[in-house]
Amino acid sequence: MQIQQIPTPALLVDLDAMESNLRSMADFFADKPAKLRPHFKNHKAPLLAWKQLRMGAIGMTCATIREAEILVQHGVDNILIANEITGEEKADRFAQLSRYASILVGVDSATSVRELACAQRKHGTRLQILIDIDTGLGRCGVQPGQAAVDLARRAAEAGLTVRGLTGYEGHLQPLPPGPERDEKVRLVCRNLIETASRLESIGIAADIISTGGTGTYAVCGRYPGVTEIQAGSYLLMDTQYVERGATFQRSLTLLASVISTRGSNHAVIDCGMKELSAERGLSAVKGLPGTRLKALHAEHGLLELDAGLSRPLEVGQKIELWVHYSDATVNLHSSLYGVRNGKVEEVFPIVH
Amino acid sequence: MQIQQIPTPALLVDLDAMESNLRSMADFFADKPAKLRPHFKNHKAPLLAWKQLRMGAIGMTCATIREAEILVQHGVDNILIANEITGEEKADRFAQLSRYASILVGVDSATSVRELACAQRKHGTRLQILIDIDTGLGRCGVQPGQAAVDLARRAAEAGLTVRGLTGYEGHLQPLPPGPERDEKVRLVCRNLIETASRLESIGIAADIISTGGTGTYAVCGRYPGVTEIQAGSYLLMDTQYVERGATFQRSLTLLASVISTRGSNHAVIDCGMKELSAERGLSAVKGLPGTRLKALHAEHGLLELDAGLSRPLEVGQKIELWVHYSDATVNLHSSLYGVRNGKVEEVFPIVH
Repeated sequence: MQIQQIPTPALLVDLDAMESNLRSMADFFADKPAKLRPHFKNHKAPLLAWKQLRMGAIGMTCATIREAEILVQHGVDNILIANEITGEEKADRFAQLSRYASILVGVDSATSVRELACAQRKHGTRLQILIDIDTGLGRCGVQPGQAAVDLARRAAEAGLTVRGLTGYEGHLQPLPPGPERDEKVRLVCRNLIETASRLESIGIAADIISTGGTGTYAVCGRYPGVTEIQAGSYLLMDTQYVERGATFQRSLTLLASVISTRGSNHAVIDCGMKELSAERGLSAVKGLPGTRLKALHAEHGLLELDAGLSRPLEVGQKIELWVHYSDATVNLHSSLYGVRNGKVEEVFPIVH
Repeated sequence: MQIQQIPTPALLVDLDAMESNLRSMADFFADKPAKLRPHFKNHKAPLLAWKQLRMGAIGMTCATIREAEILVQHGVDNILIANEITGEEKADRFAQLSRYASILVGVDSATSVRELACAQRKHGTRLQILIDIDTGLGRCGVQPGQAAVDLARRAAEAGLTVRGLTGYEGHLQPLPPGPERDEKVRLVCRNLIETASRLESIGIAADIISTGGTGTYAVCGRYPGVTEIQAGSYLLMDTQYVERGATFQRSLTLLASVISTRGSNHAVIDCGMKELSAERGLSAVKGLPGTRLKALHAEHGLLELDAGLSRPLEVGQKIELWVHYSDATVNLHSSLYGVRNGKVEEVFPIVH
């Protein structure tokens, strides 16, 4: 099928760009003690997870119990939920998954310790956790140092298997690349490693130190003692991450059709915020200089064209927009069309 | 099931509020010549469409060919796609649907006329259209008056059945209610009616004049000659529409669990922009004074609590957030839990 034949709106990935990203990241980790555990939340496509695993990733990271279930059902057997879960129902689901996979979950509260310990007893399985560290992002996680040690001891005493630490420095991803950001990233890593050694001093073998994203993997991935990196955006890349200086190739676009035009400087496409997230900014139009996305309504995108463009848009014409924020856009689709040389080569199901 | 037992994050509708909205709107139309054709895009739940139809709605409005297909598959036989579609593939799908339902689509270009006429010949079905009028919203649609007459004539000559006009005054919905807005709404209606009479003067019986939304239905619904109103938001109501002065009851909330806390003024919930749209603003927290949603990440919501609250949030606690923009939030879910007196009474599947 030609790209022009894909029913719109549709999410496309440029296979050349994606494969280049896949190889670059695999090459980086080829000679490092740290390994890659890519984040599933960025693409939610089991076939892409398998591409990553076959290129050397040790397992997958995910954000929710539902994503972990999808991964287990699709044969992935090494999973980190780099996030907290709460409540008996989710602890039960986690315990069930532990029968099929080596699965870890982040923990930052005594409540979670209690709930998971209860599920462990109830299901007769061995549950493994990582203590979630607040790296300065100010979201979830306990502080590095004593607070983490106290929680790890409590978890161990409750019978849970503490495997180490997880901490995501999301607040450092948007900083401009350079020595200043690198130093901040190294401080995060140092805090994690020091906390891990304090865990070891109380008899908890912290053999997993999981951190890092697409903006910071090169620093975290070289830091002695860090064992795995959670980068995910590198594979599909959105323009947001390109603007942050990440060196991978953007590959993700939204194919839309022009459904209405007025004069030569106004056109409307069949793609709104139900197909393309504008939560972090509006997308740029690919390959059409002088053409801008002016607004995104629920079901429509409004395009503005510079005066005097030699080729105004026509009803029925298909255009591509660069995806600005991949996480929230992939989430709106159930298929990702893999394209090369103007043709569809593969379709990757996105599973919810 | 108690509300507290629903796995989070989950979308809830307060059945008392929703039923009150359903009745109020039905009461309004009971003695009017104009009828209600509610918009499906706001809830995407066939069971709710059937509630609306059983309360007197003459059919459903929708925004896409996909939504029309869902409606036809769920037994709805009177449908308006109040939007443009383009391309042979979508014209074919529209022609197929016309075998199962009385279905109309908005048209604003010669290209669409040509494509639909071609599909009509190919499929041997009779295709019905409405000329889409730009009411001043500046999105799709031709101008009222001569441009509409010219397009209607072209469509009729191409063999399509022109049933009348559609035009949505989306730009007037957010205006403060009052005589000034009402006058603008009446001007929209007047333009539609005048254009319809010009169509009749060239032998096109414009028996459908479709317009109006939740903010403007009371004016449009009383305007002589307007035959149907496309209001949709009235049923579930979001806080955005409440802020605009609509008199229906907000019914839609997002149930989330607290997964992490720090001190007494910071908490994180398991609901981010993948479950709750922030495209038009952040949601308010229901029933917890002094507690605010500070930020919405992809997978997390960050809450800020006033100092000195008597009851800080606890891990595992469930809270509700008012949905601020229902269209883009419903789109993120596959179930809507109907609740009354703290219990789940029904679950409405949301179909995509």
